[in-house]
Amino acid sequence: MIPASGPMAFFLSTGSHEALALPLAMLTIFASAKLLAEIFERIGISGIVGEIFAGMLIGPSVLAWVAPNELLVSLADLGVMFLLFRVGLEVKPEELLKLGGSAALVAVSGVIVPMIMGWGIMRFWGSPQIEAIFVGAAMVATSVGITAQVLAAKGLLQQRSSQIILAAAVIDDVLGLLVLASVSGMARGEVNLVEIALTAGLAIAFVVGIALWGNKAMGKIVPRAQESLRVAEAEYALAVVLLFALSVLAVYIGVAAIVGAFFAGMALAGRVGHRVNDLANGAAELLVPFFLVGIGLHVDLSAFRDQSMMILALVLLLAAVASKFIGCGGAALGLGKAEAMRIGVGMIPRGEVGMVVAQIGLGMGAITQNIYGVVVFMAVATTVVAPPLLKIAYKGVEAAAPEERYSLG
Amino acid sequence: MIPASGPMAFFLSTGSHEALALPLAMLTIFASAKLLAEIFERIGISGIVGEIFAGMLIGPSVLAWVAPNELLVSLADLGVMFLLFRVGLEVKPEELLKLGGSAALVAVSGVIVPMIMGWGIMRFWGSPQIEAIFVGAAMVATSVGITAQVLAAKGLLQQRSSQIILAAAVIDDVLGLLVLASVSGMARGEVNLVEIALTAGLAIAFVVGIALWGNKAMGKIVPRAQESLRVAEAEYALAVVLLFALSVLAVYIGVAAIVGAFFAGMALAGRVGHRVNDLANGAAELLVPFFLVGIGLHVDLSAFRDQSMMILALVLLLAAVASKFIGCGGAALGLGKAEAMRIGVGMIPRGEVGMVVAQIGLGMGAITQNIYGVVVFMAVATTVVAPPLLKIAYKGVEAAAPEERYSLG
Repeated sequence: MIPASGPMAFFLSTGSHEALALPLAMLTIFASAKLLAEIFERIGISGIVGEIFAGMLIGPSVLAWVAPNELLVSLADLGVMFLLFRVGLEVKPEELLKLGGSAALVAVSGVIVPMIMGWGIMRFWGSPQIEAIFVGAAMVATSVGITAQVLAAKGLLQQRSSQIILAAAVIDDVLGLLVLASVSGMARGEVNLVEIALTAGLAIAFVVGIALWGNKAMGKIVPRAQESLRVAEAEYALAVVLLFALSVLAVYIGVAAIVGAFFAGMALAGRVGHRVNDLANGAAELLVPFFLVGIGLHVDLSAFRDQSMMILALVLLLAAVASKFIGCGGAALGLGKAEAMRIGVGMIPRGEVGMVVAQIGLGMGAITQNIYGVVVFMAVATTVVAPPLLKIAYKGVEAAAPEERYSLG
Repeated sequence: MIPASGPMAFFLSTGSHEALALPLAMLTIFASAKLLAEIFERIGISGIVGEIFAGMLIGPSVLAWVAPNELLVSLADLGVMFLLFRVGLEVKPEELLKLGGSAALVAVSGVIVPMIMGWGIMRFWGSPQIEAIFVGAAMVATSVGITAQVLAAKGLLQQRSSQIILAAAVIDDVLGLLVLASVSGMARGEVNLVEIALTAGLAIAFVVGIALWGNKAMGKIVPRAQESLRVAEAEYALAVVLLFALSVLAVYIGVAAIVGAFFAGMALAGRVGHRVNDLANGAAELLVPFFLVGIGLHVDLSAFRDQSMMILALVLLLAAVASKFIGCGGAALGLGKAEAMRIGVGMIPRGEVGMVVAQIGLGMGAITQNIYGVVVFMAVATTVVAPPLLKIAYKGVEAAAPEERYSLG
């Protein structure tokens, strides 16, 4: 039988390779993620870590069943967007704004300490100036997805420390943007201060504007839309449109799409019915494993055949953990030692954000392939160590009852 | 600022084209689908037709905002898989098996009549033998997605006629597979009867086996899994794994992935809690618009600059509608005229299935580019005329109450 071909080959297939590719990839990734999550839960480690390990296991380094491709990256991106959207739905912007001062302090200190530490280590190691700066920059930005997923799963999103982590991560993203712009400028030999200031202004206006007025606006728009719209599941459709619209706007302005997704959720917090939460969860539960597996897929262990690289990777990992713990935790000491510890630990994951900076550095020739591998290792490893540390840091904190976790309006 | 690049470029983007591509495509497609669905609902046409029109509007023929690409096709494929999975969740296999006899009659008659009609028209038109056969084959297979979506949205899935349509569509898919295998063999000049018989045997064993024992097996597996699994949303995770696993198996065996997805849902019908339904709906509501828009995207109006092609397209469309209405409706006349009409109308959509056959014919050189365009038009147009006709055919039939639509166990 001839194989079907072309874009719609998936249907009425005749056992062809193309028709098999999509469901097989979905099955491999989703099932291995859930299998390892189950195993890791059973041995007392977070299931999230299990899903990241699933990515390493099936990825190029070990079994080589799956390699990152455009579809998987897109599903991963959608996964983290829905993850942050879902988190946003549980966060009231007023409360986040109230914590803005503490969060800003945490974010700024959490940018400066890792930057300096990363730069210092690389200079000590003998790296050229620009490479050291790029590694420092890759250690700056927090990937809030991992922490948010842990806190959401444990019903801890309403904790003050959790909200500070979320707010600090948003500010951190804006700061990371400025750091990246400056560092890229340095690598090219021209730092455009006007452009950087403009970017900063736009990003701040976007973030503050939506935090201040988004939720109020939705309080007016959603009830009217609900009354007049005839399309099925209109509220959910509206929520999804807002999610993508603010993601697009966020990228236009220069911050990450997930910041837009998070703000879309926050704008709708308390303004939409519980069903929107359930439906968004259905999409998130399908897509988030692709995000987690995707992080694991990027680990390339071949960089570590060289023993000195392995040592550097471990030193950088330690520095990455310690610098956020000290930088962010230290800035939050005024809230008490326990809260400071939670915040310090919650800001540790670098994940995909660190990888992007390293990738840009690689693309510009500012860092070598080996150092790139080391930075990716650092970025992934920080996402793996964070969930167990969060578990310890939040020990004894009472989780919201399941029904209160989505107490929206 | 330099554009981010590489697979993870989406994150911490700096306003780059790549980072924008995903959320912008998602926004464009999803929002335009829902906008046109709303408009079409308001003017009294089905929202589903609106979403297909959205695809034509933003597709290459008119605005050219979006062209089919790998990601969109994959999302469309996932959409129709979740759609059929959701439908399967509401169908009890015992009931479907009980209707097997009537359904088989409907399916067989609904294959023969369109095949002969399509072939006859093309021969009359002056087409060579093999082209006429391919067009006939493209008119054979029903795309059950559109009908299922209409019936599910209106709460009519529990109707006898609806269940016959679903069962007949599954049998139709197996028959379509055999027709395609035979026709492809003819085009190559060698029909392998052993291979075709083997394919048929496997497909029938798969379909009957899962219909007979799948639900019973799940009745034993799901409660045990629920007790022992620790991973979050374990029931939904299990359901998604089954969905992809049976889709893979279906493609291996030779039937469409959506048949596997449908059977996964049916195996779980009454065996999983209501939450699985809600979560699957969340994924489906996100993804189904990509399936519907995807159908519309494939229309290429440039084939119709030639007036004679336009006439042929209209004749073929009429034949496509009439042949299923007569073939399937006629075979169901024993159930009464009203039921026969519903079944005849429900089997009209050809959608993506007809397109694939035409594509294979085009790839083998059996049909010309112009005839390909005509067949695609026929396939899409049948999906557009079906929802309003279904509305008429089911007029006066009482829908299940919303809470009964998902009365699972």
